[in-house]
Amino acid sequence: MIAVANCFLLASLTSDSGSHDDPVAPILIALFLMALGAAIGGRVMRRFGQAAVLGELLIGVLIGNVGYIYHLPSITIIREGDSISTIQRDALLHNYTVGEAARRTLPPGPHTEEIAEILEGPRGLKVLAVYSFVDQVSRIAIIILLFLVGLETSLNEMRKVGWSALMVGLLGVVLPLGLGLVVTTLLLPDSSFAVHLFIGGVLTATSVGITARVLRDLGQMDRPEAKIILGAAVIDDVLGLLVLAVVTALIVNGSVSLGSIFTITLKAVVFLVGSIGIGMWVTPKIVRRLAKLEVENIKLLFGVGFAFVLSWLANLAGLATIIGAFAAGLILEQFFDRELKGFSLRDMLSPVESLVVPIFFVLMGLQVKLEAFHDLSVILLASALTVVAILGKAVSGFAVGGGLKRLAIGIGMMPRGEVGLIFAGIGRGLGVVSDSVFASIVIMVIITTLLTPPLLKLTLAGGTPGAIVGPA
Amino acid sequence: MIAVANCFLLASLTSDSGSHDDPVAPILIALFLMALGAAIGGRVMRRFGQAAVLGELLIGVLIGNVGYIYHLPSITIIREGDSISTIQRDALLHNYTVGEAARRTLPPGPHTEEIAEILEGPRGLKVLAVYSFVDQVSRIAIIILLFLVGLETSLNEMRKVGWSALMVGLLGVVLPLGLGLVVTTLLLPDSSFAVHLFIGGVLTATSVGITARVLRDLGQMDRPEAKIILGAAVIDDVLGLLVLAVVTALIVNGSVSLGSIFTITLKAVVFLVGSIGIGMWVTPKIVRRLAKLEVENIKLLFGVGFAFVLSWLANLAGLATIIGAFAAGLILEQFFDRELKGFSLRDMLSPVESLVVPIFFVLMGLQVKLEAFHDLSVILLASALTVVAILGKAVSGFAVGGGLKRLAIGIGMMPRGEVGLIFAGIGRGLGVVSDSVFASIVIMVIITTLLTPPLLKLTLAGGTPGAIVGPA
Repeated sequence: MIAVANCFLLASLTSDSGSHDDPVAPILIALFLMALGAAIGGRVMRRFGQAAVLGELLIGVLIGNVGYIYHLPSITIIREGDSISTIQRDALLHNYTVGEAARRTLPPGPHTEEIAEILEGPRGLKVLAVYSFVDQVSRIAIIILLFLVGLETSLNEMRKVGWSALMVGLLGVVLPLGLGLVVTTLLLPDSSFAVHLFIGGVLTATSVGITARVLRDLGQMDRPEAKIILGAAVIDDVLGLLVLAVVTALIVNGSVSLGSIFTITLKAVVFLVGSIGIGMWVTPKIVRRLAKLEVENIKLLFGVGFAFVLSWLANLAGLATIIGAFAAGLILEQFFDRELKGFSLRDMLSPVESLVVPIFFVLMGLQVKLEAFHDLSVILLASALTVVAILGKAVSGFAVGGGLKRLAIGIGMMPRGEVGLIFAGIGRGLGVVSDSVFASIVIMVIITTLLTPPLLKLTLAGGTPGAIVGPA
Repeated sequence: MIAVANCFLLASLTSDSGSHDDPVAPILIALFLMALGAAIGGRVMRRFGQAAVLGELLIGVLIGNVGYIYHLPSITIIREGDSISTIQRDALLHNYTVGEAARRTLPPGPHTEEIAEILEGPRGLKVLAVYSFVDQVSRIAIIILLFLVGLETSLNEMRKVGWSALMVGLLGVVLPLGLGLVVTTLLLPDSSFAVHLFIGGVLTATSVGITARVLRDLGQMDRPEAKIILGAAVIDDVLGLLVLAVVTALIVNGSVSLGSIFTITLKAVVFLVGSIGIGMWVTPKIVRRLAKLEVENIKLLFGVGFAFVLSWLANLAGLATIIGAFAAGLILEQFFDRELKGFSLRDMLSPVESLVVPIFFVLMGLQVKLEAFHDLSVILLASALTVVAILGKAVSGFAVGGGLKRLAIGIGMMPRGEVGLIFAGIGRGLGVVSDSVFASIVIMVIITTLLTPPLLKLTLAGGTPGAIVGPA
């Protein structure tokens, strides 16, 4: 581990010579080290019978916090996450340098000073470029992951579980919101109702990437539970969008216009129904044409391009890009491999997946700041929020009928991941989420995310005939 | 074509809504459109019996110039190329905005004003993010391409042509440098010797990426001519580095220290001998261990990671990253696929290659500014430089013995590509390359690059038993 950290140090210290210095060189070494860390972490966890993704997250946590303690510049910057994007944006748009932008964005203190000095230093721009690239690649990686999940999910089977998914999704929004209101009213009695409502809204988020990876790692994508979780996650994304819009409107305008709620719902529904409907109608014709070409790479391009375009359209409709990627996979699953005999999109994308997807999870781990746990008042609120966050989702699984692993479904909905953090970030921008509330939310997100892989494995295995063994 | 341009317009106009707006959405659509353009261009050119890479370059030229005429923001920014990186760097490091940075970096005029306004506008930062990501991905793409070329090149066969490659490489540096000195002395009599020397130095660059793609497109990688070109390109990169260092030292210090030349040579030689020597000694042991693991993705990670680390080391040694990637491929070719039976790195990387590598060539095309051709005095100097650039390299092919396509070898060394532009950019930074000289160099680079695919096909085919037919 120390060797890896040393390598990082070396990487970030020495790449400063050369007459035609390639700006991509530090990015290459960062990608390699993250993929290497992921491979080691994944292997170790698999030895312990856990999903590989847990190892990727934990190796990220380890490198991130050790690197921070030893003041490694690249790691100190990368673990700041989204704030770095804000700092970069401010420095570009305003009349100040990137160091000054850091001092304006982050709370004053020695930590902010360290970041400002790294960014102003001789390797500041390289570190910034590495951060931006790794961040963007990992966003693309998660899109590819959800596309692959869609490719392995049959729309017909999704329809069969449609009602269950709807109930789980609804309950998974209502329960955390309600419980969140109760807890915040008790623990933050001096804050306004808007604050309570916003925190409740943050608790409704579902980040299905982790769950999808765990199910894949364990080879459990074919279970009805997996379909219900995925369906409920799509519904949660739409509902979460509405909750966020309503709460934000209440805070900003003091009231909610029915028109805006209608517009938001309409956009989301038009995207989902439209993309799947038109997709099912148009894409088979295109694919049948493609089948006549012998050029393999055009088929691959069509598949990946379709996923990218639908992700982009989902983003336009206000939904998460991964929802678009999942829909693209669902549509193509119907006929792509069948029509194009001997051509498997999944097989072709599998090397891309194994190289790039782990980088997303290592990055998530890198951005887990253990120092967030050192404030006692924060710990209290964080514990309450975490309990509520886990309970609210876990119980929602019981909306489905018997015969299924209902607790596993609830656990699958548990991780808040980046979606929860994005919500919280918007709240900070609106002034309803204070620094200590934000820290509590971060802790809640960390715990729900890290607990999901082991708990999901446990709940899926319990009482099943035969133990669950993942693919080698 | 207009449909594609319209799509770009749409893409750059509409991605501005959504409450959790994913910053990667505009990048997805840009990557898709570039890959789509590449596929169309490549297919059309193949219909005409040409290498696909020519179609990718030309579609880039078309979209870039049409998009510029119609003032499409993303294209107007992307085609500026390296200047955009400079602008971004200045805005981050200094107390001014990205718009002001553009006005300081580029020559004053309406074009600069347009760029500054795009960058300052509401979508400026998105366009900037798209540019940076596409630029970095295409740099990684060319590294993967040269790694694959190395994987298809046997070190033993390279050794066999070692002497020929050395002679071609040497002549390919001496001739363009000498001819360049003659032409610039005649055409730029008022400039100093340093200017003449620098332009001569620019003419020595070889950018082997284009040639490697053409040889792959035509299925001609196994010819001895291909090995000679690749070997000579490595030698040219080392010599080019020396020429650049000597000329720069002459300009900056007025003299050259033997010590610094020695250091530069030493670093390059240590890298080449060291990486191949140690690589041949250490990697077989690692690969034999890998053979015992059943985990496919660790083998893939090792292969790609080795290429990335060697690219990074090459950059440290002052060489081009692609030289490192090529060396990595050469080393692994020896035993990787043989030791790991049933596992082919090339097959696993082929989907990555077909999706990502064309983006590099479309980007090169996008950055070809046809408006550079409208200044008559520039055209005169550019024509002279182009003739000398072609002659110098073409003749160098005749350093090898008979029985080989000697002209094809020379043509293969002809493209200056990004290496020539980087050299010229350094000269502009030193103040020895004026705007009109720079424009002439750009034209020389454009012509040598665009002429290589058709000329290489022609010269390889001439007199061969049987026509050259590329793989489907």
